[in-house]
Amino acid sequence: MIGVDWGTSSLRAYRIAPDGAVLDRLDKAGGIMTVPEGGFPAALREAIAPWLAAGETRVLLCGMVGSRQGWVEAPYLRCPAGPAEIAAATIPIPFEGAEIRLVPGLTTEDADGIPDVMRGEETKLVALAERTGTALACLPGTHSKWARLEQGCITHFTTHMTGEAFGALSAHTILARTSVEGPDQPEAFARGVVRARQQGGLLHHLFGARTLHLMDRLKPEETRSFLSGLLIGHEVTAALAETGARHVELAAAARLAALYEAALIQCGVQVRRHDPDLVAAGLHHIARSLQWV
Amino acid sequence: MIGVDWGTSSLRAYRIAPDGAVLDRLDKAGGIMTVPEGGFPAALREAIAPWLAAGETRVLLCGMVGSRQGWVEAPYLRCPAGPAEIAAATIPIPFEGAEIRLVPGLTTEDADGIPDVMRGEETKLVALAERTGTALACLPGTHSKWARLEQGCITHFTTHMTGEAFGALSAHTILARTSVEGPDQPEAFARGVVRARQQGGLLHHLFGARTLHLMDRLKPEETRSFLSGLLIGHEVTAALAETGARHVELAAAARLAALYEAALIQCGVQVRRHDPDLVAAGLHHIARSLQWV
Repeated sequence: MIGVDWGTSSLRAYRIAPDGAVLDRLDKAGGIMTVPEGGFPAALREAIAPWLAAGETRVLLCGMVGSRQGWVEAPYLRCPAGPAEIAAATIPIPFEGAEIRLVPGLTTEDADGIPDVMRGEETKLVALAERTGTALACLPGTHSKWARLEQGCITHFTTHMTGEAFGALSAHTILARTSVEGPDQPEAFARGVVRARQQGGLLHHLFGARTLHLMDRLKPEETRSFLSGLLIGHEVTAALAETGARHVELAAAARLAALYEAALIQCGVQVRRHDPDLVAAGLHHIARSLQWV
Repeated sequence: MIGVDWGTSSLRAYRIAPDGAVLDRLDKAGGIMTVPEGGFPAALREAIAPWLAAGETRVLLCGMVGSRQGWVEAPYLRCPAGPAEIAAATIPIPFEGAEIRLVPGLTTEDADGIPDVMRGEETKLVALAERTGTALACLPGTHSKWARLEQGCITHFTTHMTGEAFGALSAHTILARTSVEGPDQPEAFARGVVRARQQGGLLHHLFGARTLHLMDRLKPEETRSFLSGLLIGHEVTAALAETGARHVELAAAARLAALYEAALIQCGVQVRRHDPDLVAAGLHHIARSLQWV
């Protein structure tokens, strides 16, 4: 089978053997935002033509390709959901020469009735859930996802706009004036995490990055790491308070994994790191429920 | 006497009678950022020449003119401080034809040893403290100030970067894509305040503005007001939690006063509104301690 994670800014495709082994892969810049109106079938065919020619007949897609801005909109499936529920909710897309199905995103509501959504991460979480059993999983990033996993299912999750807030606040507030980019400063990051766990609230803590600078207690090259520690510290504190978890399964690329692991350890929880390259395994699990493999 | 509030983006000057009555005033765009190197004496003389010619001999300055980017840096004075302490810490500036003194900003430290600063607001708070007695005061804005006032003194304060965070997050995140500017939407603002008081944390609540839109539960013309309610709600909740106050003295221009009053009432506290035009009265109080009037 062929698995495709087609996001906003990139297309990643995998040729997957029946046992789940990844036989071949490709990573292209052609995210859904670059596809012209009506251009999805041609864009996909161009990407996976060699594998179709080699005899593949089934393609499972996930990611923003199933959003309102994508090829076909796949309505969000309600949690709890695992591979079987997700497989049952996949959407068929007519395509000459192959059977194509689209993985839906997931939605959940918190105790106060406010919805949350994910699209693409559900496939990674399906793979993670199979490895971890009951757990709290964290996929950090622009929009970090924290998900409760039980018996292979995603039962609930929350999104934190941490990465995007960091970008906006570090570049478009007074903090930009006294910060310079450079390598991560672990000590300044740790101070930010400590601060995040104190009283006062995030909006007050942000101004502390300014006052610490004025008092010569935070250097320009430390400001971004301190701010990163503040924001990740607030995210981690809120996520742990909501779940009461003492152990987190963390799947992220090396740099972000190091930051989140450091923040989580400061908060007194155990962390297990996972390779973030989970999509192919998740698509294979869902394909198993479709009896494709 | 002459009182001047010289900030980053404007210069406001007052001719003040010995009893505190404002005899004349001017409001210019010439903030300290527009003044060339060494140009402060000439810029001030140009602004207040008619009043000097009419016989005024004393000028009290406050605001960012006393910052590192201003005319002369006036070191921050430590809280608690009232008119007498502030007057004693004013800095003389040599000036041909008048006695000039510069009001220092204030600094405080919280229980965790993190500093906070204000420059300009101390003068407004001196005026407010004389009117309110023991109170919790709120001066909302780009950098909102919350100050405890006791017997005419400012005993402690905190800054929240709410206005600036609103600007950065509303314009430079995914929320910008689905929001349109327009008149304030009180109902959406109130929903944001409600949300701020629920669990999950600000970084999670921000993403809610996105998901509510995706679920057709927040209109593009409501997004900015919802976000404003979220941020002001988080600020107010944190400030009230820290102080335990049940009554707030609020000094702000009409639009911001309406928003903060609504949020505070939702949080169950009483609010008294004050005219935000407090600088001339504050400068007069400090001048009294200098025995200028």
